[in-house]
This record gives sequence, C-alpha cells and structure tokens, in this order.
Amino acid sequence: MSHTQPPESTRTPGRAAPLTPWPASARPPAPAAFAPVGRIPVVEVAPVIEDGRWPAKATAGEALPISATVFREGHDLLGATAVLLRPDGSVHSSARMVDVAPGLDRLEAWLTPDAPGDWSFRVEAWSDPVGTWIHDAEVKIEAGVDVDLMLAEGAVVLTRAAELERPAADRDLLLAAAAVLADETLAPGERMVRATSEDVRSLLERAPLRDALSPSATYPLQVDRLKALYGSWYEIFPRSTGAYRDPVTGQMVSGTLRTAAEDLPRIADLGFDVVYLTPVHPIGTTNRKGRNNTLGAEPGDPGSPYGIGSPEGGHDAIHPELGTFDDFDHFVDRARGLGMEVALDVALQASPDHPWVTEHPEWFTTRADGSIAFAENPPKKYQDIYPLNFDNDPEGIYSAVRDVLQTWVDHGVTLFRVDNPHTKPLDFWHRVLTDFHARHPEVVFLAEAFTRPAMMRTLGAIGFHQSYTYFTWRNTKEELGDYLLEVAHETDTHMRPAFWPTTHDILTPYMQQGGAAAFAVRAVLAATGSPTWGIYSGYELVENVPRPGAEEQVDNEKYELKARDHSQDEVRGIAPLLRKLNVARRAHPALQRLRNVALHATTSDQILAFSRHLPADQSPTGHEDTVIVVANLDPFTTRDGLVHLDLAAIGIDVPTGAGPEQHVLTVRDELDGAVYEWGASPYVRLTPSERTAHVLTVLR
Amino acid sequence: MSHTQPPESTRTPGRAAPLTPWPASARPPAPAAFAPVGRIPVVEVAPVIEDGRWPAKATAGEALPISATVFREGHDLLGATAVLLRPDGSVHSSARMVDVAPGLDRLEAWLTPDAPGDWSFRVEAWSDPVGTWIHDAEVKIEAGVDVDLMLAEGAVVLTRAAELERPAADRDLLLAAAAVLADETLAPGERMVRATSEDVRSLLERAPLRDALSPSATYPLQVDRLKALYGSWYEIFPRSTGAYRDPVTGQMVSGTLRTAAEDLPRIADLGFDVVYLTPVHPIGTTNRKGRNNTLGAEPGDPGSPYGIGSPEGGHDAIHPELGTFDDFDHFVDRARGLGMEVALDVALQASPDHPWVTEHPEWFTTRADGSIAFAENPPKKYQDIYPLNFDNDPEGIYSAVRDVLQTWVDHGVTLFRVDNPHTKPLDFWHRVLTDFHARHPEVVFLAEAFTRPAMMRTLGAIGFHQSYTYFTWRNTKEELGDYLLEVAHETDTHMRPAFWPTTHDILTPYMQQGGAAAFAVRAVLAATGSPTWGIYSGYELVENVPRPGAEEQVDNEKYELKARDHSQDEVRGIAPLLRKLNVARRAHPALQRLRNVALHATTSDQILAFSRHLPADQSPTGHEDTVIVVANLDPFTTRDGLVHLDLAAIGIDVPTGAGPEQHVLTVRDELDGAVYEWGASPYVRLTPSERTAHVLTVLR
Repeated sequence: MSHTQPPESTRTPGRAAPLTPWPASARPPAPAAFAPVGRIPVVEVAPVIEDGRWPAKATAGEALPISATVFREGHDLLGATAVLLRPDGSVHSSARMVDVAPGLDRLEAWLTPDAPGDWSFRVEAWSDPVGTWIHDAEVKIEAGVDVDLMLAEGAVVLTRAAELERPAADRDLLLAAAAVLADETLAPGERMVRATSEDVRSLLERAPLRDALSPSATYPLQVDRLKALYGSWYEIFPRSTGAYRDPVTGQMVSGTLRTAAEDLPRIADLGFDVVYLTPVHPIGTTNRKGRNNTLGAEPGDPGSPYGIGSPEGGHDAIHPELGTFDDFDHFVDRARGLGMEVALDVALQASPDHPWVTEHPEWFTTRADGSIAFAENPPKKYQDIYPLNFDNDPEGIYSAVRDVLQTWVDHGVTLFRVDNPHTKPLDFWHRVLTDFHARHPEVVFLAEAFTRPAMMRTLGAIGFHQSYTYFTWRNTKEELGDYLLEVAHETDTHMRPAFWPTTHDILTPYMQQGGAAAFAVRAVLAATGSPTWGIYSGYELVENVPRPGAEEQVDNEKYELKARDHSQDEVRGIAPLLRKLNVARRAHPALQRLRNVALHATTSDQILAFSRHLPADQSPTGHEDTVIVVANLDPFTTRDGLVHLDLAAIGIDVPTGAGPEQHVLTVRDELDGAVYEWGASPYVRLTPSERTAHVLTVLR
Repeated sequence: MSHTQPPESTRTPGRAAPLTPWPASARPPAPAAFAPVGRIPVVEVAPVIEDGRWPAKATAGEALPISATVFREGHDLLGATAVLLRPDGSVHSSARMVDVAPGLDRLEAWLTPDAPGDWSFRVEAWSDPVGTWIHDAEVKIEAGVDVDLMLAEGAVVLTRAAELERPAADRDLLLAAAAVLADETLAPGERMVRATSEDVRSLLERAPLRDALSPSATYPLQVDRLKALYGSWYEIFPRSTGAYRDPVTGQMVSGTLRTAAEDLPRIADLGFDVVYLTPVHPIGTTNRKGRNNTLGAEPGDPGSPYGIGSPEGGHDAIHPELGTFDDFDHFVDRARGLGMEVALDVALQASPDHPWVTEHPEWFTTRADGSIAFAENPPKKYQDIYPLNFDNDPEGIYSAVRDVLQTWVDHGVTLFRVDNPHTKPLDFWHRVLTDFHARHPEVVFLAEAFTRPAMMRTLGAIGFHQSYTYFTWRNTKEELGDYLLEVAHETDTHMRPAFWPTTHDILTPYMQQGGAAAFAVRAVLAATGSPTWGIYSGYELVENVPRPGAEEQVDNEKYELKARDHSQDEVRGIAPLLRKLNVARRAHPALQRLRNVALHATTSDQILAFSRHLPADQSPTGHEDTVIVVANLDPFTTRDGLVHLDLAAIGIDVPTGAGPEQHVLTVRDELDGAVYEWGASPYVRLTPSERTAHVLTVLR
C-alpha cells in the first residue's frame, strides 16, 4: 500500500474504530420542538428535511439560501436574521433577510459555510423599533402630525440603539443622530434627514437594534467538501484499457490496472478529475453471462464485473487478471499525481461462486427447497446473481460491507458509485452513510438509483452525497429547462445532481440517432447544467450503436473486452469539445455551483438558453462570474432566433431607455474564442456540424 | 346567573383553576425525532403542521385523510396502515392505505375521530409477504417457472399468516388455504385460485401478515366538537333590536338584551344556530365617533360598541342601556331554548375612558410626552381607541383577558368572535387558546383576521378553531372554484373556513350592485361552500347601500341605532331562501363537512357547479349523501349551459356505453322542490330573478 493522501481529505487511519452504528456526532442537534409560537413568529424554515430529521445538504464554499415565513401583528416593522453556526455551535456568519415574495412574508438570505462538518442554522426574527420610528416619523412629520413628539421619540430609540455593545465610532454616530433631532436651529424635516443619513441607516442595517428577539429552532446542515458537489467523472472498465486480441490464440487478452494507469494521462488531459472504475473484483463462472447479455458464456467470455465473487475472492479482492493491490495502489497514486481521485463501484450482490455464499449462506434467501434464491423479476430470473437478504443478518452483513468499504478507503478510494442502492434497505444505507460520515467525512457516495422520486429524494436525504438523475431522459427544451430549475431550486435540499448523457447501461434514442452533434450538445448540457457531470468511456468516440431493440450499447462492455483506438479521439471524435468544457468548468466557479441557474427565453423551440451567475460576494475569486449557455437541441438542423436575456438574473442593471440595439454586454465563447457584442435580445444561429452550442463568458 | 348548560359542553365551574400558562395536557406528544429511517421508509406524513409543533385540525365525526409517502427497496410489495389514537393513546381505528398518486408512492386512508380531545395518529409501513408471494406465484405458475416451489412457499407464508392472533375461523380458513396448495389432486393453477379466494384475500386485507413493521412518528391531532366546523351564524347589534324613535324627543331609543331576546325566535326560524353579539360593553365618550365614522359625535349618538370602556366598566361589564347580567343570562337561555348558541365579540382595545386606563396605565404605550398612544396608522390617528401594549405587562394583560373571557364563559358564551386578532401578539393568543382548550375545550374561537396568508394560517395553527376567509372577495367562477378547493384540501390542516357574504364592515362592489340576486347567490355559495357560514343582520332585507366611496354600509350600525322592519323579510327580502338553505344544511350531513368538495365543469363562464359527497361509511346517518350546487354568478342575466358531472366524485359508477341522453341520476332542488332526471351532462338554465341557483339532493 503506497500512495499519497487524497486531496481535501481528513482520513483517519485503518479499521481501529469500533463498530458504532449511530455515532452521536453524526446526529443533528435536537430542535426546540413544541416551542410556543415566538413573539415574532417564524415558520416554514428552509432548507429543512422532515423538520430536521436529516440534515439538509450544503457544500463548503457554496452559498446557501436560508428562508422562512416571518410576520408579526399590527403595523410595526420586523427584521429577520439568518444565522449560520459552525459544528462547535459558534456563530460563523449572519445576514439580514430580505422579502422575496411580497405579500407572502417570505424572507431569505444567502450564507456560505466555508468548511466541511456538521453545521446548523437558525432564523432570528425581531421587532425593529428604529425602522418603525423612521417610517412613522417620516410620514407624520411630512403631514405635520406629532412633530415634536416624533423627534423626541427618535432621540430615545436612537440612544437605545447606541447603547448596544458597539465600536465607539458607531456609538458616537448614533448619539450624534439622536442629538440632531433636538437641534431647534434646524427645521424638523432637516433634522430627520440628518438623523437618518445613509451612514446611520447602513450602520443600523449591519447592527440593528433588535427587540423581542424570537429565534426559530436550530436546524442541521451537513456541509460536505466541494467534490461532493463539483466534479468531472470519467468511467472505465479497466480490463478494456490495453486489451488486445492475441494473434496466436485469436482470443482477446484483458487489460490490467497497470494498463489502465497508462490511460490516465489521456483522461486527465481531457480535464476529468474523477476516474470511476467499474467493479474490479473476481467474477463468478456459474451461469456467467455471455456477450450481449446472453445466457451461456462462451469460453473466453470474461463475464460481467457485476457478477462478483469467485473462489479467488469477493468484494474485498481484486480480479487476478487485473492485478494486485499493489497495482491498485499504483493506479490510485498515478491518478492522484494527475490531479484525479478514484471512484469505485459498489455492487452489493454475489455470484453463486462468491465466498460469502459458503461462508454465510444465511446472508441470502433460502427457498423452501433449500436452494439459494437467484435475483429475479418474476417470471424472469438472473441466475448469475444471488441478492443479499439484509433482513436475515443485518449486523453481519453491515459489518462485512463496512469492512469491504474500509478496505478500499484504506487503498485510497475517496468516492463510491453505489450500484442500485434502491434494491437494498434504506436503513442499511443510513447506517453505512452515518458511519462513514463520522469516520471518513471526505468519502463521497454517489447513488445510482434511476427510480421513482420518493426513493431518489430519500436516498439523498439519508446521506448519499450525489445522485444520478433523470437528465439522461430529458430531451426537449421544456423538459430540460424545467429540470434545470428542479435540481437547482426544488430538490437541492435533498440531492446533488450528477448529469450523465450516457452510461454503460443507457443509450437513449436521442443519442442513438443524433450522431456526433447529439453527443456534443448533451456533453455541453451535462457539463454546464450540473456542477457534477460524467461520461462513460467511448463517449469521446461517439459510440452510439445500440443492441437491437435495447437502449444500451451493442456488444456491451459489461460482457466483453472492448479495445478502443483513442488515437481517433481528437480527429474523428469530440475530445476537443470535452477538453474545452472541462477547462471552462475549472476556470469558472459559476459552473461549479448548483443553485445559481436561471433560464432565458428564446424565440426557437429548439434553442435552450440558461445562465449560471455568481455575484462577487459568493465567488471564491471575489469577482463576479457569469456563464451563459445557448444550445441547439436539434442535432440535424441549423436553428436561429433571439435570446431574450433576463439581465437581472445575471447581475446586469438594465440601462434606462435602452433600445433593442443598445450594447449591453460583451461575451466570449469558451468553445471557439469568438467574441460577441450583445444587446438585451441577441440573435444566435447554431449549426450542429459546426457549433452546436455557445458557452459564453460574460466579459461586461 | 341562570341558564341551562351549553350543548356539547364539558364546562368546569368558575375560576377556581389556577393560572396555567402551558397546561401539559395541551401539548402535543413528543415525536420520535431523528429516528433512523425505518426499514420501510415513511416520509412526508400529513396532516402535520411544522412536524407536529402544533396539532392539525380535526372534528368529531368528520372523516380525515391521513397520507404519507411510503416506498421500499426492490420489488417486494409493501403495505401501510393509518392508525388513529384516542387521547389516552389507545388505538381507535386503523385502515389500509391506498395509492392515490401512482408513481409517486403517495398513500392515503380516511379515518374518523368520534369525540373531541387531543388525539394523535401514525402511519405504519410494513412488508407484505403474502401479497409478494401471490404476485410472484401467479406470474411464475402461469409461466411454468418454479411451480412446486412457489406452491410450497405459499403454504409456508399462509401458515405464518394463520399463526397470528386471530379468530379460530380465520385461522382455519388460512390453514385450509395453505393445505390446498399441497393438494396434488388439483392442477397448480387451480390450487392457486382456491388458496387465494376472495375470502382469503379479504381476510388478509382486514388483518394482513405484516413483516418489518415500520411506524412513523406519532403526530398530534386536535379534535374539536362539530360546532367548530359546522354552524350557521347570525350577527346582531343588540341595541338595534327594538330600537325606536321617541316621538316626543325625536331621539332614537336603544334596544336592550331583552328586546334582542325577543328577536331570537325570528332568527331561529331562519334556521341559524349561532347568534353572534357585537360587543355589549359600556362605550367610551372621549372622542366618541359620530354617525358614518365622523370625528365628532352629536348628542344622542350611541358611539361604536368597539370603543369599549367607560366609568361604568370595561370588557367584563354590560352597557347599562343594554341591561344587566340577568338580562344577558336571559338572552342566553332564550337562545338555548331555541337551539342556538351565543357568540360574543372580543375586541381587545380600550376607549380612553376604560377602567384599565387608570388602573393599569402600564398596559398601554406611554409616549415620550407622557401621553398614552392612540391607535394609529400614520399619519392617521384613531383618537377613540387606545391599543393595549402586550409587551409592557404580558402576565397582567393575559391574566385580565383570561378573567374577562372566563366571565362570559360563566355566563353561557360558548363561542368568541375575536376582532382583529392579527393586531395582537401571536404568543398571547397561543396562551389564551391553549389555556381554554385545556379547561373549556367546548369553547370555539373565530379569528376575524382579514389579512395575509401567513398570519391567517398561523392563527389557525396555534388554535383558533375557525377563520374568516377571502370568500367575501372571491367573485368569479375561477376564483370561487379555486377557493373552494383551497379551503377544503390545502389549508384544511390549519384553518376551518367561515364564509360570510358581508359583515358590518364589508359590503363589496358585487353586493352593492347586484341587487337581491347577488345577495341570493352569495348566500347559496356561502351556505353550501363552507360548513360554517354567517350573515350580518339586514342581509335578509338586501341592505346594499354603501357609504359613498367606501365598501361598507351607509349609516353603519357601528355608529348609530338601526331600526329594521323585519315584517318585510319574507315579502321583499330573501328570508325564505335563507331558511331553505339552513333547512338543507341540517338535513344533509354532506353540507356539514369541509373536505368532501369537488368541482364540475360547465359550459358557461358564469355558471359554477360543485358538489359535496359523503360516502355511507363517512356519513353519520350511515347513508350516502350528495348535494350538487349549480349557481349563476351573473346577478343580471339568465345564463344556461351544460354541467359535465364528474360522476366518480359523487360516487356514481359511470354506466358502460352510456350516451349523453342516458338517465344517470335523479336530483331534487332543495330550494323549490323541482325534480330533474339527469344524464351525465345535464342542461341548466338559471334566471336571477326566479332561481339564481340549484341546490340539488341526489336521489339516485
């Protein structure tokens, strides 16, 4: 075992830690349940999952909207403060909340946790006596009502505000404001203007006088490292790398972890930062599947890496044809050296030859005839697979899986891609995720659950860091637009999306039929539509031939070795586009965030336009960052039209009286360097064979 | 003090109870917060307010939908049971939940609490091994796969089901079913059919074998008496009853509680069951308002009953011109004898002459010049009113208000109409409502908060039993249809609606302009659109003249005595209609429920059609009850068109192959006795001057 530390890691060594099914540190803080309603009521706080039963998702460095419904009796003004608390309970930051839905009393502020950990937040509502006085005094002095009284009451309230713990200069400013209200050499209106100067207002905005302070409950927030949100994944079957046909035997010869390591510079050069390995374990021979998912394997068929387990070992072993743990460690080291982390597949099922079957037959389902149950979807059976029965020995299976995962963590794996988590009990996953969150918070778990919304949301809620999504099946402008908003604003509390145009299991009709342009535009949409995206190897070569009647690749790599000629990537494939997309993603923090998306109307039903905007105060560079994507979804036809920019959404003040021709912004296309001077409704024209999309940096 | 007991009351005598700000019994039970996810996950349980911070609303005798998102891993079947718990924690009833949103895993069951109290409920999810076996076995035996094995496994699972605690006959039925699976004299398919007979399935539906039982948290449900949901209110200013102009002085002479009591038979004859009194307390003279809300009262002007308090007393006193507590008790007794309860206005504010002003100046706001602050909405001031300042002495004010309310409860008031609760702190109301809920759960509080949604919802959430609503301003077909669904299905967890076409403060343009037809159709909509409706006296006389420029009555009864000639009610007014509506409401439990509403499409944008349907198992009579309302919203013009009935919503199976002419149901109009034979899309024609609406009982 020899490799460097993973980036952003806080690894703890080895397996010394005892089995702690529910580490106390992983539990969210208890809320003030059943509190009486506050003096200033705060309800419907967000982001909150099931009232804090599980922590909402947050990421170090990503701004997070904290919102609540806050209101009060009568006419007096209120204020509300969002307060972000570090894992130790100390206040990290706070911000005055603003009304984002006038008439509905919905207030919001954005705060940014800056390190991973078990953070929390609350909302503090309060009565605003200074604001109330300013409002009433301005109206009444203008109307000549209670003039002296209002000035006198202003002096009282400003003095109260001054008496808070404040820097001396601030206190002096407020006391001077109080004093000027009594200055009878000035007209009352003038006294008001001076006492409520911009300096005074801005000071009180920063540090207001807060009466009747009414805090909400404190809600949990799990802050993960940035890789949980932002990453560029590249999936490989390591045995295919360097595979070749033996000229003597005529048989294909498997690649190894060493040949896979030799392919890493190519992947890194494309800009990917996670290399994801399909399972590397020994493969069963009993009922092994043949090419194209046929029932009988021919001699020499390598079998599916998802048919895990043979006499050579199970989930904690490496297929001998791939190499040894030394080779694995070498692979991890090489990836790290190239700035990449390694993700490993976790497919919790066994071939009939898995050591667990003989060592722990009780971990499987025994049928009435004494046989072990195959996986099935009646009347179909999958005779190469025994599913685990988690109810038979939950402790034993949990302990074994924990040890398996720990083995790979100890060998440098920092991300797990979990195969079909929705076919295993959620309480099992909750335990795994809670345990690893406590001991290895740097390890990221990606849920491969292409299933119904409730399951997908709840897998995220109980701790999966990332989720495969419906992006793969969202094709039309309306579908894609709605989905971008859904993942950014509706499900973001529960799930972080990963956008994959294809996987080794999925090749949609759009991808089968749309040629290189379809592969290009879906790459653009995935790479800019979600902070995490991924491709399955061969994408750069536009491999798009389906197995007849199926929505997956013909000659699926799951069942055979697939030698690829990557010398064609650059000339016949779309490698240059992929590289440019990843370069843009690295250069633009706006593309590394989830919640900052906005749609822009276009005049073509085939042209989708959206932007990601990061204001300077939310940007790690301290500078505003904005990327606008304009994509032609029709892979066959040139499409043109106008884009009606939502300028407010990208932080641009609309020039007053600007005509349609007036220059508003300068943009540069990250894909081809072209620069455009745009008005508020620019014309675009996108030809699939030349330029399927714009990915535009706003230069201002 | 002499009167009979209030109906449905559990009154406790007098004020002996100590001041218990947060009676433990009023607190909802603690949930299993931060429980691990269950083996079969249950999330998004409803009806729940803020995860159980406050109890959801329920009513004795009203069926309640309990729903949750329930799902599981893999392909095995699950079941879920909604369980309703009595205040002592024992199980009252339970029901198998059904999928109401296929693909979204949303399950629901309806249960009916049958008595007031602090009930609760939970959802139990479970694995369904029998259902899983039936599904798999049917598919596999049909396909000839694992036939003997599936039969053998069926015997095992049915035997397990038999071994639950069951009646002997049920156990025998299941054991016989298990045995028949082994009967080799029968073909396998025949064995399946016999083992899974309707009797067996129905038994297992009633009492299933439930593996991996996974309960949700237990959530609170406040069950109130039926009057909290269903009532017909009639509002009076008692001083106007029997008021007359003295022929000698030329001055109006006030009516009394005795003259008001004489008017009660008329109100009862109209079918109302709650008589609501505007404030009956002494009225201040300082800055008293004159007629039509003018600033200077003329001699003889009686002042607004909302300007409460004089040297003769405050909120716990009776205006001497109205009479004495004996007269009040007489009024209550008379009402009770006529089957009516008495509601009293609670307007927590003081005239400058209120005893509180001198006894407790600290309960008001003292300004910088030492004066007490008037009510104001800057720059306007209301110099006849001092608002209470609840923050100055919360304990003192709470204690005084509690005593005031107790006084009226002791004198037989069973409902309070709370004036402008949204101008007082919510924590004050929460305390009042929690306290009275514990000591006088029969007392109903109606919130008169015509304000923003968050405030209205939260007032309901913290314990107001009923709420005035936006009905008064919903006029168009779309507005009314949306609103009927909103109050029945969206806000029902928080609020019970009261529909008022007008109040003494509100006369909308529709009511000003639409004549008797407007008053008629709005009465129909209020009386059938909400289980609680109310009218302000004079409605039966179609009093519709506004004060110029205002949306309220001219010569508003708040500021003067108003003698009415009720001999005209029947001939020139709409009293007969009001009587028929209340008769129909008493006869039809479907009109006494909130959640049972459905809309029906019509071909006219002026004709609104909706129904209230109560299946037999939700009906107190044990018989199905259905009322269909078809209303012409245009008070000036005859409108006609087709009503496309949603037959499923009214419990009618659509006849197969039925043409548009086929007879589907017989209906009788409760307003004029006409009987119609209807197909699925009946033609209706409504002439405002003759018949503004149908209120149709379905006879089948």
